[in-house]
Amino acid sequence: MPEYKAPLRDIQFVLNEMLDNEQHYQNLPGCEDATPDMVSAILEEGAKFSERVLAPLNQVGDQQGCQFNDGEVTTPEGFKEAYQQFVEGGWPSLAHATEWGGQGLPESIGLVMNELVGTANWSWSMYPGLSHGAMNTIEEHGSDDQKQTYLTKLISGEWTGTMCLTEPHCGTDLGMLRTKAEPQADGSYQISGTKIFISAGDHDMAENIVHIVLARLPDAPAGTKGISLFIVPKFNPQADGAVGDRNGVSCGSIEHKMGIHGNATCVMNFDNATGYLIGAENKGLNCMFTFMNTARLGTALQGLAHAEWGYQNSLIYARERLQMRSLKGPAYPDKPADPIIVHPDVRRMLLTQKAFAEGGRALIYFCAQLVDKVKLSTDVEEQKSADELLAFLTPIAKAFLTETGFESANQGVQIFGGHGFISEWGMEQNVRDSRISMLYEGTTGIQALDLLGRKVLMSQGESLKSFTKIVHKFCQAEAENDALQEFVGPLADLNKEWGDLTMKIGMQAMQDRDEVGAASVDYLMYSGYVVLAYLWGRMALVAQQKLAEGTGDKAFYESKLHTARFYYQRILPRTRALAVTMQSGADNLMAMGDEHFSS
Amino acid sequence: MPEYKAPLRDIQFVLNEMLDNEQHYQNLPGCEDATPDMVSAILEEGAKFSERVLAPLNQVGDQQGCQFNDGEVTTPEGFKEAYQQFVEGGWPSLAHATEWGGQGLPESIGLVMNELVGTANWSWSMYPGLSHGAMNTIEEHGSDDQKQTYLTKLISGEWTGTMCLTEPHCGTDLGMLRTKAEPQADGSYQISGTKIFISAGDHDMAENIVHIVLARLPDAPAGTKGISLFIVPKFNPQADGAVGDRNGVSCGSIEHKMGIHGNATCVMNFDNATGYLIGAENKGLNCMFTFMNTARLGTALQGLAHAEWGYQNSLIYARERLQMRSLKGPAYPDKPADPIIVHPDVRRMLLTQKAFAEGGRALIYFCAQLVDKVKLSTDVEEQKSADELLAFLTPIAKAFLTETGFESANQGVQIFGGHGFISEWGMEQNVRDSRISMLYEGTTGIQALDLLGRKVLMSQGESLKSFTKIVHKFCQAEAENDALQEFVGPLADLNKEWGDLTMKIGMQAMQDRDEVGAASVDYLMYSGYVVLAYLWGRMALVAQQKLAEGTGDKAFYESKLHTARFYYQRILPRTRALAVTMQSGADNLMAMGDEHFSS
Repeated sequence: MPEYKAPLRDIQFVLNEMLDNEQHYQNLPGCEDATPDMVSAILEEGAKFSERVLAPLNQVGDQQGCQFNDGEVTTPEGFKEAYQQFVEGGWPSLAHATEWGGQGLPESIGLVMNELVGTANWSWSMYPGLSHGAMNTIEEHGSDDQKQTYLTKLISGEWTGTMCLTEPHCGTDLGMLRTKAEPQADGSYQISGTKIFISAGDHDMAENIVHIVLARLPDAPAGTKGISLFIVPKFNPQADGAVGDRNGVSCGSIEHKMGIHGNATCVMNFDNATGYLIGAENKGLNCMFTFMNTARLGTALQGLAHAEWGYQNSLIYARERLQMRSLKGPAYPDKPADPIIVHPDVRRMLLTQKAFAEGGRALIYFCAQLVDKVKLSTDVEEQKSADELLAFLTPIAKAFLTETGFESANQGVQIFGGHGFISEWGMEQNVRDSRISMLYEGTTGIQALDLLGRKVLMSQGESLKSFTKIVHKFCQAEAENDALQEFVGPLADLNKEWGDLTMKIGMQAMQDRDEVGAASVDYLMYSGYVVLAYLWGRMALVAQQKLAEGTGDKAFYESKLHTARFYYQRILPRTRALAVTMQSGADNLMAMGDEHFSS
Repeated sequence: MPEYKAPLRDIQFVLNEMLDNEQHYQNLPGCEDATPDMVSAILEEGAKFSERVLAPLNQVGDQQGCQFNDGEVTTPEGFKEAYQQFVEGGWPSLAHATEWGGQGLPESIGLVMNELVGTANWSWSMYPGLSHGAMNTIEEHGSDDQKQTYLTKLISGEWTGTMCLTEPHCGTDLGMLRTKAEPQADGSYQISGTKIFISAGDHDMAENIVHIVLARLPDAPAGTKGISLFIVPKFNPQADGAVGDRNGVSCGSIEHKMGIHGNATCVMNFDNATGYLIGAENKGLNCMFTFMNTARLGTALQGLAHAEWGYQNSLIYARERLQMRSLKGPAYPDKPADPIIVHPDVRRMLLTQKAFAEGGRALIYFCAQLVDKVKLSTDVEEQKSADELLAFLTPIAKAFLTETGFESANQGVQIFGGHGFISEWGMEQNVRDSRISMLYEGTTGIQALDLLGRKVLMSQGESLKSFTKIVHKFCQAEAENDALQEFVGPLADLNKEWGDLTMKIGMQAMQDRDEVGAASVDYLMYSGYVVLAYLWGRMALVAQQKLAEGTGDKAFYESKLHTARFYYQRILPRTRALAVTMQSGADNLMAMGDEHFSS
């Protein structure tokens, strides 16, 4: 059975040694108490809960799945009890406003906790995960009454939340949505329509579910400018806050799907359900963007989760499984065969997982600091530049980390050989669970258009520069550091090439808009490799400094340096292919008539 | 529900227009009757059976899976009846010896039929597929008595076969196998041991199952030199050929696995089962190699199958699904949104599937002609060179086509967006079913070691030259063909680089054997891209000639040219990354101590 051990040492490395989170929290108002010791204490508790309660339920969730009977969803054995413990531990309230019952800790700590919970059991983690989306939306756009009624219950964890966007005929293209909201005399609305792919749409874990629903007012303009946002509770709250009668919203069915079986993916039917407007009329999509950025970072985290889970279990197997001898002759002559970790290609796969898991962690924690700054910084300039940088990095983190997370999960299957295909080992579940991450919260293709079309080209490249100047600064600062040249040299070259490629594509796009779509995914993946190269460069620097100081933990820091080297020599050259293909133009995609695709 | 339409036009293109199969059959003794008309007639019948009988059972097989109760395996609804029809149609006997009841058609026609059957329903196709393995083994190594008793029944399809190699502690490393064979006074053997991962190991589709089993004689030398091969029937045949009493072999359980649910993957227990030696004592593994090459080509075909299935269904969806407008403005203004086929990135994914499916078909049919020559040619020189070339191409076809088949299946999920993750659309099943192909019959890593270590380097590069000289000849012949220079130029460069890289790695390997394993998978994938580039070059040439002749079917040939161009501009540049990584040396993999992988 697969296992999970929270990688606290590596988390501490990124938080404290690389990103200097202590200083970061000292600079943020209200976060001064978040000392490394306090953060450690929280994470140790979180690690115990994730390892002991959630991880053992991961396979159970996959095998049992959710059940749908008589209009009600039942979650897999143990899910409900685990959620009860989670609520009792106060976890839902960690990074939410004290005013509404939260603990007021910075979002970045919440994200680290989400990593532990999500790696241990992604399907389970989506129940509280979707609640965060609902909480953030109400916190930002709701009225005080709405906060009092709904937010407090979500923060306490008594109720959970969902986000209801997609309809059968529209996913990416929300402008086409049809769900209607009819204004009522009492100021409420009657919501009618069908939503699909609603994660955690119904379940038996909490006494009420707060749906955040996109719908259209009777006189709303067509397209995305006519969408409003509503709160629709499963049970109408009574004046005292207790759960009242059932509202007109129900689960019609649950989807049979490739993975994340432990999470209920629901068709939700709204039949004159009572709803309450959040924010201004027809501004629903603007309100959603707040949520979407957080949600995209949360999904980026899923990539890290599957890479980490895949790596941990592949490593155990690679050390235990005896098969063939090293090409150099027996490495463990006392055993009937060598453990497969002696084989270069098995190591290549393990190091690929390791490089993406640890690099992904660095990227998400780097972004998490930006989230904190956007939310809490009192320095307007700092806040603005954090916001721009986060907007640039979010589509990269989302798409690149989920693509590489899937790749890493898939390497897990390959390392296990035929056993990887068998369910009991858990590696194939890891692939199936990870596959959704490249689809929901905007596919890889959509992230790529957001990055290249909306962020980089619409800002005339300024968005890109917000990051390349950081890389440039790092390369300059380490220009004389001889031992780091194997990283700094290639990084500086790529950083320059990135700008040149952007300029070139931008010029082409002025002639033909299809050039954006034709280059976008290759451009995003290229960007991801360079971003991770920067972070691996920084991690290598820390490791080098620690080794020079001789502070102990030598094996850990050497392992970091090895992995950085592996990343630069074995992964980063993928940019050589991407640089060519992204420049190859739209013609090789668009010249063929739609009708000529079939023979 | 997903659909399948046998791509007869494309099959005819490869067989007749590109590979001139008519001439090929005319040159082979006994194959003169296989005219294009006759082959067409066979394939049209095969197409009907595959489209109408097998394809509709593909999802049924996945959803129901095989059931194991009271020691017996039940296949999904309709599987048994389909097999009955298959036998009545005479399909099992197509490419087997007339002497034992076969139709004596060349193996290459059997392989095309396997494509149709396998694409329609891979899980189902494995039942007759494994029989072919058993048939080929007995045909090549069995005694006349064994052929009379077993081969005739396998060829008629009354019985099916299996290959029993893997044991719990040994898959790749067959030298460790423990199953025992005790000689009996009557010349038979008593076989005892446990085999796992036995595809089609038990089922309800045929009255008897013939297991081909690897086992060890009491006095056998250790390792691979002490393995012998046995026939072990499920029911002992009586003197008249009818099925007699039950033998001591039974299915212990079936595996729960990621995909191919319709095929029973069995644990087989041999408990003093009566078996009969095939071939010489202790030469079992040599006999297996015959089977393995065919089996590897058969598995390569699985890559093509999932790419083709993914492409066909993705294309239907991409034409129907309306979502967003073209970046250039509405392409279909009368519709509420454009079909997603207008988006460059969707086309990139579709063309990737198309390029791998059609390129894969060209590669397998190219290899199939070599199989025919090895088996039937009377020209000793031709036979020898076909054998060498086939030995070189087999690991490439197996690993490269299954890797790209998985990639293509995965693009299918991506093209469907969120719906790709939902079972009813069939795209996620295509990914799950395809995943096993990179594992069984030797993982990608094993194929890569076979290619680089055993084939290329052990022959001092001669094995590679058997193919590069063909590419060189093609490039020379088309050197003055202006319109083909976009293909011939890059191909000639790559063909040269391929040799240079091989030389360089060979030199490194002389210093350190780990250099072989460190370069092998990148080397294999690089080789695959170049092999497909050669075949796409040849297909482009045919298309160009046909267009010049103006023989009609213009859209088809233009589509071929477009796809060739796409392949060269968007896929082939992946060699730029692989050329770098394969040269990066073993150090970035081997320098880290086994114990330093975990933090």
